[in-house]
Amino acid sequence: MAEKIEFKNLEESFKKHLPENELKEVKRILYGRADDHELSINDAALAIAAANNFEIKSYNFSAAKEDLRKPKIVKIGAVQNSIAALTTDPIHIQRNKLHEKIGKIIDAAGADNVNVLCLQEAWTMPFAFCTREKHPWCEFAENAENGPTTEFLKNYARKYNMVIVSPILERDEDRGSDIIWNTAVVISNSGNVMGKHRKNHIPRVGDFNESTYYFEGNTGHPVFETQFGKIAINICYGRHHPQNWMMFGLNGAEIVFNPSATIGALSEPLWGIEARNAAIANSYFSVAINRVGTETFPNEFTSADGKPAHKEFGPFYGSSYVAAPDGSRTPSLSRDSDGLLIAQLDLNLCRQIKDKWGFRMTQRLSLYGEKFTEASKFDYKPQIIKE
Amino acid sequence: MAEKIEFKNLEESFKKHLPENELKEVKRILYGRADDHELSINDAALAIAAANNFEIKSYNFSAAKEDLRKPKIVKIGAVQNSIAALTTDPIHIQRNKLHEKIGKIIDAAGADNVNVLCLQEAWTMPFAFCTREKHPWCEFAENAENGPTTEFLKNYARKYNMVIVSPILERDEDRGSDIIWNTAVVISNSGNVMGKHRKNHIPRVGDFNESTYYFEGNTGHPVFETQFGKIAINICYGRHHPQNWMMFGLNGAEIVFNPSATIGALSEPLWGIEARNAAIANSYFSVAINRVGTETFPNEFTSADGKPAHKEFGPFYGSSYVAAPDGSRTPSLSRDSDGLLIAQLDLNLCRQIKDKWGFRMTQRLSLYGEKFTEASKFDYKPQIIKE
Repeated sequence: MAEKIEFKNLEESFKKHLPENELKEVKRILYGRADDHELSINDAALAIAAANNFEIKSYNFSAAKEDLRKPKIVKIGAVQNSIAALTTDPIHIQRNKLHEKIGKIIDAAGADNVNVLCLQEAWTMPFAFCTREKHPWCEFAENAENGPTTEFLKNYARKYNMVIVSPILERDEDRGSDIIWNTAVVISNSGNVMGKHRKNHIPRVGDFNESTYYFEGNTGHPVFETQFGKIAINICYGRHHPQNWMMFGLNGAEIVFNPSATIGALSEPLWGIEARNAAIANSYFSVAINRVGTETFPNEFTSADGKPAHKEFGPFYGSSYVAAPDGSRTPSLSRDSDGLLIAQLDLNLCRQIKDKWGFRMTQRLSLYGEKFTEASKFDYKPQIIKE
Repeated sequence: MAEKIEFKNLEESFKKHLPENELKEVKRILYGRADDHELSINDAALAIAAANNFEIKSYNFSAAKEDLRKPKIVKIGAVQNSIAALTTDPIHIQRNKLHEKIGKIIDAAGADNVNVLCLQEAWTMPFAFCTREKHPWCEFAENAENGPTTEFLKNYARKYNMVIVSPILERDEDRGSDIIWNTAVVISNSGNVMGKHRKNHIPRVGDFNESTYYFEGNTGHPVFETQFGKIAINICYGRHHPQNWMMFGLNGAEIVFNPSATIGALSEPLWGIEARNAAIANSYFSVAINRVGTETFPNEFTSADGKPAHKEFGPFYGSSYVAAPDGSRTPSLSRDSDGLLIAQLDLNLCRQIKDKWGFRMTQRLSLYGEKFTEASKFDYKPQIIKE
């Protein structure tokens, strides 16, 4: 029941049809800057992208010069991709082919000196939760600290001096529970695992039957203080919850990645809004990442929408982008092809925007702590005024 | 130091230049629906708009038919306007001329059967807080319950069987404090004052020196249960605070108005994001309202931006719009002219979207109540992970 992608992205349509002066004004109003601030990418990275057929784009976000603080420049990368094998192939083949594909993209990121790279949600597998079948998909779950995917990425992290955020399906082996989680593993540029974060909010929407596989995370809202900046990960459906974004900000995040898997019919008009609102409200950078492609499964399944059973899920519409604390953002990667989005950030912008807008100062946090606690109780009486 | 408005709005540019099929796809991705769902407006209302030189637009938001609940149709209106006299005119003249101008717009809303109408922030006055002068601007403050503006509107509310939300500068006379507040007065369709809400978050940004006039509100997050639906008001700068929007949702709001006064150079790229994100996150309708025009003051003032003193503030960029819980929205009113935006809503959509997306169910409210309370304390230790 997948719809067709006929439209590469908004930017392509604007660029093709709008007169130069109007294009600039549209971009200023829509994206917060009249110019894209595109950065050149080095030849080695371009060559890898060309040879492996993925899009590569790079953009700059600068900050005002300060007297007392040096610029705090970091280059981040976001990867969007389709799966690399048939879903009927053995699990280890499906995973290995994804390792191979993503390895090339990491090579390009390394060649262009990316410091912190984030992959898409559950990147080692098709987004098979639409089937509600436990077998064979649960086989994709692996140990966060030393499973094959983490081991695979440790080498790249060391090789390129790069922090890699790896969102996988986690099997909690160490406690012997065998429970499955939706987890982002943070691998330091030293090659060691810094820690992990488990998805805080789990959807129960249409084909996103994820709550039948894993539960709400128990890792809080950790911020990872890497050598390149303070990062956090808000996994997929957590982007719909402003209070989730906010806690990462309260813990000091400068960059929050949002690795996702979502489809056009459901969420596309929300996509440009939520991660960007989070960047604005919390004075940090946010990075919205979505997969691409349509995934075809061996057995038919229904989508709780009254339509006949079918085997396809998607298309996932890509459109990954980076949003800045000042409300500006990059164009999107395309809606239909693998891609690496690079952005060079001056993290000094976060505190500069806090000084300018004052959202942290004016947020009345204790008031909301108290109100949310009251409102969560069974006997809460809403503040309703009647005539 | 006002910049020029040379661009009526995004929609005009898209309509002029994009091919039909691409325009539909752009609108679907950007605004959540390929078609605007424009409603016809009756001739009497059109005639009043034409005679008084303001834009008038109307759009429809429908919901799925249910078996047990009837459609819950309400027609809402939002007014954006420039001031109507010179800022050097006597206060009573400035106010009277605004009453006169808005009276005509209310007549048009009445003629088109609007049930709930919201005016812009501090609608009876120029947005004079940029001057930091207390005299004569504080004279605009008036009693919320029985000041001249409330009395003026009570007649219209009765005449048109219309709830009117009137955001004014309030003088707290009844307690004898003479304190000033930024307040929205809710006048019931019976002609009685239902109550009021005082702006919860006050800016300290550039020309928005409002914290030198009034303080953070003490009225909580009231929801007014009108005959036509449950409404709330998030005044201006409160739109930057997702937790503020959220509390109105937790108190049961179906429509949250955001009467604002904001300028392009500062906030325009944020404008389409914040109120719409609130509608999505809280499964209610939001209504973003901004004034238009440039206001010229008698005495020069500086804007804390290194530029020379000047007398102009603006232009305010209008662009009022309505956003729905499903992520869709109307086009904007223009950036430069007075206007009445009408939207017909089926409030059943709120609960339908709660059922579909489940954001209230999955929000983990008690967790965030606890975390916000902890994070508000002086000795809070952020959850930071180091290698």
